[in-house]
Amino acid sequence: MSPSPRVCAVIMAGGSGTRFWPLSRKSRPKQFLPIAGRKTMIEETVARLRPLLPFGAIYTVSNKAQAVAIRKLVPELKADNILVEPFGRNTAASLILATARVYLRDRRTVVFALPADHLITRPARFIRKLRAAAAAAAKMDVIVTFGIPPAYPSTGFGYIHYSGRKREKIGGEAFYPVLRFKEKPKLAQAKRFLAQGNHSWNSGMFIWRADVFAQKLEEYAPDFFPYWQRILKALEKESQSGVAAVFREIPATSIDYALMERAKGVLMVEGDFDWSDVGSWGSLADIWPRDEAGNALRGKGQFIDSRDCLVYSPRRLTAVVGLKDVIVVDTEDALLVCDKKADQRVKDVIEKLKKKGKERIL
Amino acid sequence: MSPSPRVCAVIMAGGSGTRFWPLSRKSRPKQFLPIAGRKTMIEETVARLRPLLPFGAIYTVSNKAQAVAIRKLVPELKADNILVEPFGRNTAASLILATARVYLRDRRTVVFALPADHLITRPARFIRKLRAAAAAAAKMDVIVTFGIPPAYPSTGFGYIHYSGRKREKIGGEAFYPVLRFKEKPKLAQAKRFLAQGNHSWNSGMFIWRADVFAQKLEEYAPDFFPYWQRILKALEKESQSGVAAVFREIPATSIDYALMERAKGVLMVEGDFDWSDVGSWGSLADIWPRDEAGNALRGKGQFIDSRDCLVYSPRRLTAVVGLKDVIVVDTEDALLVCDKKADQRVKDVIEKLKKKGKERIL
Repeated sequence: MSPSPRVCAVIMAGGSGTRFWPLSRKSRPKQFLPIAGRKTMIEETVARLRPLLPFGAIYTVSNKAQAVAIRKLVPELKADNILVEPFGRNTAASLILATARVYLRDRRTVVFALPADHLITRPARFIRKLRAAAAAAAKMDVIVTFGIPPAYPSTGFGYIHYSGRKREKIGGEAFYPVLRFKEKPKLAQAKRFLAQGNHSWNSGMFIWRADVFAQKLEEYAPDFFPYWQRILKALEKESQSGVAAVFREIPATSIDYALMERAKGVLMVEGDFDWSDVGSWGSLADIWPRDEAGNALRGKGQFIDSRDCLVYSPRRLTAVVGLKDVIVVDTEDALLVCDKKADQRVKDVIEKLKKKGKERIL
Repeated sequence: MSPSPRVCAVIMAGGSGTRFWPLSRKSRPKQFLPIAGRKTMIEETVARLRPLLPFGAIYTVSNKAQAVAIRKLVPELKADNILVEPFGRNTAASLILATARVYLRDRRTVVFALPADHLITRPARFIRKLRAAAAAAAKMDVIVTFGIPPAYPSTGFGYIHYSGRKREKIGGEAFYPVLRFKEKPKLAQAKRFLAQGNHSWNSGMFIWRADVFAQKLEEYAPDFFPYWQRILKALEKESQSGVAAVFREIPATSIDYALMERAKGVLMVEGDFDWSDVGSWGSLADIWPRDEAGNALRGKGQFIDSRDCLVYSPRRLTAVVGLKDVIVVDTEDALLVCDKKADQRVKDVIEKLKKKGKERIL
């Protein structure tokens, strides 16, 4: 058996989601909230990796204010590993910056590129999969991605169409050649994907050796490769202004769009570790413990003749009477009462409040 | 034309409703809330009477804490007119005490016995009806009551069955002999009442000359008449302990039950002055202004794809998304989210919280 590859994780913590308003705010996005468990999602993401990685092998990438928050939440992280983006430019830029940093230390290190705000409730299995993915990425000069077995025909995720023919078995796991990354589908199309099989949800988690990332950029994302080269140079010179100059120019594009959808030779391994992107308040109904009537409560609540509701009310008592599938989120200065089926429309609240100039509560 | 009778009002302000929780509390019942208009209901009840009555002719009857609140809200009331019940004993006891006080000053004064927590949106018509009722009560040695034209087969009100044959026309108003007071019916029975006609809702507003009240008690409520006599004596002696001794013994019964359902010679006049007892949160949906989607708001709110909701949120912004017929009431330490059809079940919340020992928020 080959020796363990050198590995590290890059946690993408720069998101600024609005779907958990009013608990999440511009200044306090989802990954900084204790929304799924007792700790913030960023803390849980770090903790989940610790069986595999020392703190020195865990990086984060985010904006400056978030970096300050991360240092407070996880003081064990090395200051050098908390990477700061001079501007928010989506995940392609984040991962070019972070992978370049890793590359300059050791170009054959395997990078786990992981969102800070996902939930995984089978962490031991997750670690096993990461080990296998690292072994595959180290050995085969490929990019590996986790494909989530689709639970229903979601229109909220991108899909990965993969070949059913097993490419290879490594570390006890099967790796499948990715045929195509597909954008979020309409419902009919999503249903076809599920009926057809060999389609999984795109988890947004990717595994690559730093040098393989560079090769793949050069080959499949030639429009992004020059930014990579310039970032490398700026980091070598420790020039913050050089990094800023690149960020000023680089298109704000996801890594999916910039690289994954274009690259050949991507392998998928099944991410069957009870994953959730915790995409909206309604998704928490499957995560928080529920009482016999299906009501989920964080904080103080009293349900009367109500079913399948979700209440977040840490400060004051919330009484819910005669309702079904209603979400209540109580914060100090704003309150959300929302039908579970309409939880994607929380962003409309934000839009309306923006138009009214109510920036203070966004 | 006969001279105007001497008249006064007794406002029954002792209720301790729970149906407007969490805004109403044990210590702050509905009549002390600005729930229908901009002022508290007790202030509005007094203001509504002013075209007819000087402050010196307006009495209130309530417990001690409520009396303090009333003096603050309506400082123009005479201290002597703010009557205090030593114990809460329902409306029979309240009205025996208040009418005895009036009787000792002038036994031929007509008393308007009026709840403090009703809404009347045609006050000029109300005053006209009061004048006519006072004239009838002064002239005819009868008790007069307002019957509300029933808008729907309510099971929440008692009914008055009256004779369609006009008894007499006084002050331009028709007075009908009451055949029977009926308790809150089942729905089928309420429907029969409406189909049958000659049934109106019992408004709980009564008009009597003080001496006629005493006569009617003696004749039709002989079990209560001794309390009347003892109260009179205690008041004559200005003996608070004497009043307390009577209240300790007197059954806690409504005036409807103690006297009205038993008395003969009661007349009804139509209370067609847009009355509402404002019985629950849902009833406010017909009272507060609504937007084009039927949503009623007091305070700060944002409705997204929602209809016919009612939001009370003076402190923080409440966003309602994708809901219909939902009531949201936000207070400092408790929050209610309730289906409009279930608003009578708010009392179940109180019960549950009581059982849990959460007296602080009741």
